[in-house]
Amino acid sequence: MKHFIEERQSIVTDAIDAEVALAGGKLARLDGYPAIKVVVRSDWDRSKVAVVSGGGAGHEPSHVGFVGDGMLTAAVSGEIFASPSVDAVLAAILAVTGTPGCLLVVKNYTGDRLNFGLAAEKARAMGLAVEMIIVADDVAIPDASHPRGLAGTLFVHKVAGHFARLGRSLDEVKAAAERAARGAVSIGLSMSSCTIPGRPTETRMGAEEVELGLGIHGEPGAELVPLRPVSQLASTMVAYVDRALAARGAARSPLALIVNDLGGVPSIELAVATKAILAAMKDEGREVGLVVGPGRLMTSLDMKGLSISALPLDAELEDALLSDVEPRAWLPPRRPVPVVPVALPASLRVEEHRPSTHAARRSVVE
Amino acid sequence: MKHFIEERQSIVTDAIDAEVALAGGKLARLDGYPAIKVVVRSDWDRSKVAVVSGGGAGHEPSHVGFVGDGMLTAAVSGEIFASPSVDAVLAAILAVTGTPGCLLVVKNYTGDRLNFGLAAEKARAMGLAVEMIIVADDVAIPDASHPRGLAGTLFVHKVAGHFARLGRSLDEVKAAAERAARGAVSIGLSMSSCTIPGRPTETRMGAEEVELGLGIHGEPGAELVPLRPVSQLASTMVAYVDRALAARGAARSPLALIVNDLGGVPSIELAVATKAILAAMKDEGREVGLVVGPGRLMTSLDMKGLSISALPLDAELEDALLSDVEPRAWLPPRRPVPVVPVALPASLRVEEHRPSTHAARRSVVE
Repeated sequence: MKHFIEERQSIVTDAIDAEVALAGGKLARLDGYPAIKVVVRSDWDRSKVAVVSGGGAGHEPSHVGFVGDGMLTAAVSGEIFASPSVDAVLAAILAVTGTPGCLLVVKNYTGDRLNFGLAAEKARAMGLAVEMIIVADDVAIPDASHPRGLAGTLFVHKVAGHFARLGRSLDEVKAAAERAARGAVSIGLSMSSCTIPGRPTETRMGAEEVELGLGIHGEPGAELVPLRPVSQLASTMVAYVDRALAARGAARSPLALIVNDLGGVPSIELAVATKAILAAMKDEGREVGLVVGPGRLMTSLDMKGLSISALPLDAELEDALLSDVEPRAWLPPRRPVPVVPVALPASLRVEEHRPSTHAARRSVVE
Repeated sequence: MKHFIEERQSIVTDAIDAEVALAGGKLARLDGYPAIKVVVRSDWDRSKVAVVSGGGAGHEPSHVGFVGDGMLTAAVSGEIFASPSVDAVLAAILAVTGTPGCLLVVKNYTGDRLNFGLAAEKARAMGLAVEMIIVADDVAIPDASHPRGLAGTLFVHKVAGHFARLGRSLDEVKAAAERAARGAVSIGLSMSSCTIPGRPTETRMGAEEVELGLGIHGEPGAELVPLRPVSQLASTMVAYVDRALAARGAARSPLALIVNDLGGVPSIELAVATKAILAAMKDEGREVGLVVGPGRLMTSLDMKGLSISALPLDAELEDALLSDVEPRAWLPPRRPVPVVPVALPASLRVEEHRPSTHAARRSVVE
């Protein structure tokens, strides 16, 4: 496997440098490479609740790409697929937290829970108001004791960032973010695992197999299923989402939907898959009110796969998702509309080629 | 190779359907699938110059993704890597052209030149004012008689769309677009060819080779070079750009730069490559004033490669590139800034681990 990298040791910091360099001065990074990989808003005055997230690298644009007005105040990155250290998380908290406090948004992985949790404890011991919420939106395995955090985390970032920007209290921001976290359900489907630079690509899938419910680090999924036309794959994914929403007793309100490229899906296939997913949602009787994407939001390096995340909407969540934000990695939600073809210009005469009805001529051609 | 598709015959129309469905009513497609694959602005009143582009599919988001206020008025798509028919181009022209006329922006491929050219002739015979410009920005082969059209075409779309929106005449829009087309230079570098669904992947590159100067249809490039750290690959690409600009006698003004993912570069590697490209530009003494991307702008299905495109700026071109547009596939240009680390919070004590200076202890550890 070939990679656009300088050296394995500097992949994450090189990528962060490019993000900061192209943010037009709106982002800064803290000193302390390579141990501390923290990106913060450079225009932040600590007068509102800070929203901090992060985790292992390899999921770009998550999380650095979502730092900016209306979303994250800071992002902490570990190495590829490895949690950031307690010190790194603490550095982020200290760099952005003022009197209103700080909300940590953490995906449900052991290392992240531990290191963000310990950093929160240390920050509290230093007198700061810090709260933490865990996102566990993966619904691949019903009744899993530790569902993973997947791209549904983006809903939580957006909702928390929205209410923080409005100047709400830490409790209010946390309550809104928890509502988004409890509502979000996600399922992934992939045709390949991912390749970590310097390591061999895992090839547990056959040439005619895809994996349902795998995670964003190449963890095994819930089941291997045969490769089928995308409409059938989409129906299977949507069925997982539908069952999970029903099991939670979620209201049958319109859904916000994220269609997330895990990194290796060509744009044309991503569009084809999106059409199939929207059709499958309709077939399942689930109304899609807003669509985020399709695009790369929380990737798994070069994985050829995608995930869908759904969140039942109410007026407050809808406002929160629709408000403008600065980070360009966020793809503003759009309302799907029916496609009605426009009649061809009257002056255009397209030649129609029809099979001949002349029996003898037809038999010669055939 | 596994793909997210329904069936090979409907890949392009399925992808177009998703684009139109998610455009919130701002886009429409003409009737006439599968022969006619044309997307038009649904809010277009023909009161200004129309800008129409297109070509084979497989380059998404080009060209359908760039239809909208401030860029293209319509896009015509062929099948994957195949030019649209004369009828399809004519349908697009007729659907959007009013008294002010229409500018066709065509990449320099035989099929596109022929079919767009014939459609232009037919439209003129019907009394419409139609002009055509050819984009030939590939600088892989010095003194090539027919340089290809690559992602530099995006500069031309943006500039033409800007002046058309300002209400300029067809001659003025064409002149500005030609200035962008003459100024733009592009070079691609790839680690893999692309895979057309239903066909085997071509594997002419070795495991330790990359190809410089290949096209967006997997055409062979100018040279195979050894896989090296990205700083060296970036220097090689930038040297091509620098030589081509010098050969044209271009002013040493700041450049607008497009960093374009050809489809299969993971986000983290794309960021790493962007850092290297910006550094190589600086080493070459070329000032980068604006950066478009990094991102997918003109892809080649799943090709793991990228292209850079440069355009020497003047005040008028800079304004044209910076003006807001509706299409979200356009990535608004940003000015690169130096990355200056922010000091760590004073209250943070990061433990430093230093090798022991105690000789005996040190020898035990080693």
